[in-house]
Amino acid sequence: MGLIGKQTWEFASQPVLISTGTVVGPKEGQGPLGHDFDMVHQDSYLGQGSWEKAERRLMEEACETALSKAHLKADQIDIFYAGDLLNQIVTSGFAARTLATPFIGLFGACSTSMESLALAAMTVDAGYANYALASTASHHSTAERQFRYPTEYGGQKPLSAQCTVTGSGAAIVGKAGEGPRITHATIGQVVDLGVKSPFEMGPAMAPAAVDTIAQHLKDTGRKPEEYDLIVTGDLARIGHKIAAELLEQKAGLFLGDLFKDCGILIFDPDQEEVFSGGSGCACCAVVTYGHLLKRMERGELNRMLICATGALLSPLSTQQGESIPCVAHAVVIERGRWD
Amino acid sequence: MGLIGKQTWEFASQPVLISTGTVVGPKEGQGPLGHDFDMVHQDSYLGQGSWEKAERRLMEEACETALSKAHLKADQIDIFYAGDLLNQIVTSGFAARTLATPFIGLFGACSTSMESLALAAMTVDAGYANYALASTASHHSTAERQFRYPTEYGGQKPLSAQCTVTGSGAAIVGKAGEGPRITHATIGQVVDLGVKSPFEMGPAMAPAAVDTIAQHLKDTGRKPEEYDLIVTGDLARIGHKIAAELLEQKAGLFLGDLFKDCGILIFDPDQEEVFSGGSGCACCAVVTYGHLLKRMERGELNRMLICATGALLSPLSTQQGESIPCVAHAVVIERGRWD
Repeated sequence: MGLIGKQTWEFASQPVLISTGTVVGPKEGQGPLGHDFDMVHQDSYLGQGSWEKAERRLMEEACETALSKAHLKADQIDIFYAGDLLNQIVTSGFAARTLATPFIGLFGACSTSMESLALAAMTVDAGYANYALASTASHHSTAERQFRYPTEYGGQKPLSAQCTVTGSGAAIVGKAGEGPRITHATIGQVVDLGVKSPFEMGPAMAPAAVDTIAQHLKDTGRKPEEYDLIVTGDLARIGHKIAAELLEQKAGLFLGDLFKDCGILIFDPDQEEVFSGGSGCACCAVVTYGHLLKRMERGELNRMLICATGALLSPLSTQQGESIPCVAHAVVIERGRWD
Repeated sequence: MGLIGKQTWEFASQPVLISTGTVVGPKEGQGPLGHDFDMVHQDSYLGQGSWEKAERRLMEEACETALSKAHLKADQIDIFYAGDLLNQIVTSGFAARTLATPFIGLFGACSTSMESLALAAMTVDAGYANYALASTASHHSTAERQFRYPTEYGGQKPLSAQCTVTGSGAAIVGKAGEGPRITHATIGQVVDLGVKSPFEMGPAMAPAAVDTIAQHLKDTGRKPEEYDLIVTGDLARIGHKIAAELLEQKAGLFLGDLFKDCGILIFDPDQEEVFSGGSGCACCAVVTYGHLLKRMERGELNRMLICATGALLSPLSTQQGESIPCVAHAVVIERGRWD
């Protein structure tokens, strides 16, 4: 127990994913998973005065939903791990102010969903928290103006671009209770094969996902078929195809139909301007906590590996000609205590 | 053991602070603690092409120094917790790429030094790492142009402003070995009393420091005099005075000469443009890992509480008229295994 192999944490007590909250914007609500989310907003401003304030409300609502479903109050949460894409993760900082719980801010770009869940599980497993809350959020319009062009400019994008998910997912991890169990987490190392274009995030992140998935299987001594699904965070269509190829070529791992991607699952390719698929901190969080856990609850899945991928670039690092360092963190969720 | 009281982690195994590395810029080298740092650069560019690249080198050098002193190689580090002030913490992301260790990125502004040390200690204590590395970095010139004015503009500052420390501190935490022990960490919650000016960080952060210090003493049942020092991260002269007053008024705690601040210690008030004192992610890290641990090694200190404070603002949140959410995380370091 503890650290196994090189990068994997095995949780002896198998902490329980007690409850989740998922809140999304209009486009995500119209997508194929629309009915799996707790709340779908029709107004991407959520009635707030700015998109940044809207993003903050998304996280607050996701956390409130998770708390409400677990019949817990914020002051029963011992630790809140959260992160987002905005500079200085202000969405999480302001949400933490609202919740008034002990707060550890994270930045792992779109890998933050599983980064925060891994830390929440470790903290509970090791006895430092009775209840830990993990959350991430992103908003299409705040990400556009921070990372790409002013929204009003209407810049054209290549088809390799991805569409940042507007939403937030939150999960409460506890020592006991009903719900799926968190059994392992594999913490990724930074991989950078030299991609420089911020419109090619999926291809940039694919090698990091491959590295973490292969390491997870090596550390645990497991085969891919011991999982019902192995799911990447937001590689989207182009990146996911590259990851599947790299897994086969570099690690001799053929995942086939086991291998899915939250960025592909969340949108219908026919939806307007989704390009290669979804991205953003919220993508993996809402698909996992909304859609995939519902499938597990229905008995369709017994064990899944969720590998959230993050591109650790900044607009300044891109302008200064740097390539994109990427990281992926994976968490194993098992069916467990519903049955 | 584990969680005690409301917000404090008690580490049963008392992980060891095996080694540290501290690297600073010219101004910090000329300050009163100049001789306590492992490396003092005379060129704030470190021979790099940009200040951002220089900041990255600072972190890499601090980590390399800590590894070298511990006779460890980077691939023996099981987990690297790091953060900085730059958007999307690119300094840490790039340093993690160089180190090629499993990486968890943090953002807690200037509280990141103790945030990363607390997580490193927890991870080792709970058996998820044999060696954990914690690091933070900041650079005066990267912070100026990101948070305030373009450096070339030469904007005037009020005397309540603080001077961002150019430097980086790194610490390696292990299960056993010689060195001081990490016995507790108190994780702060966000406190925001409505300060809006980014030139008044110390006053904005003071209530968060007070909250965490008071909670730490409550959780552990200790009195201030059980510590040889209680040190805040970077409140600087104005903020530290406010914190001392608030501790007395709100919590009935009179700390007197026990109560120090890294932002005051690092510069001489007569140095040019240090204003109210030092700030930045590196401030608390280099003062603690350089100066204070040397004092402990000499037998002058047996137990200290280091409370790093962070202002979780972004330039955008300030422009949008938001006040500054603040947080403080505290770690207890005891003399232990040198004697």
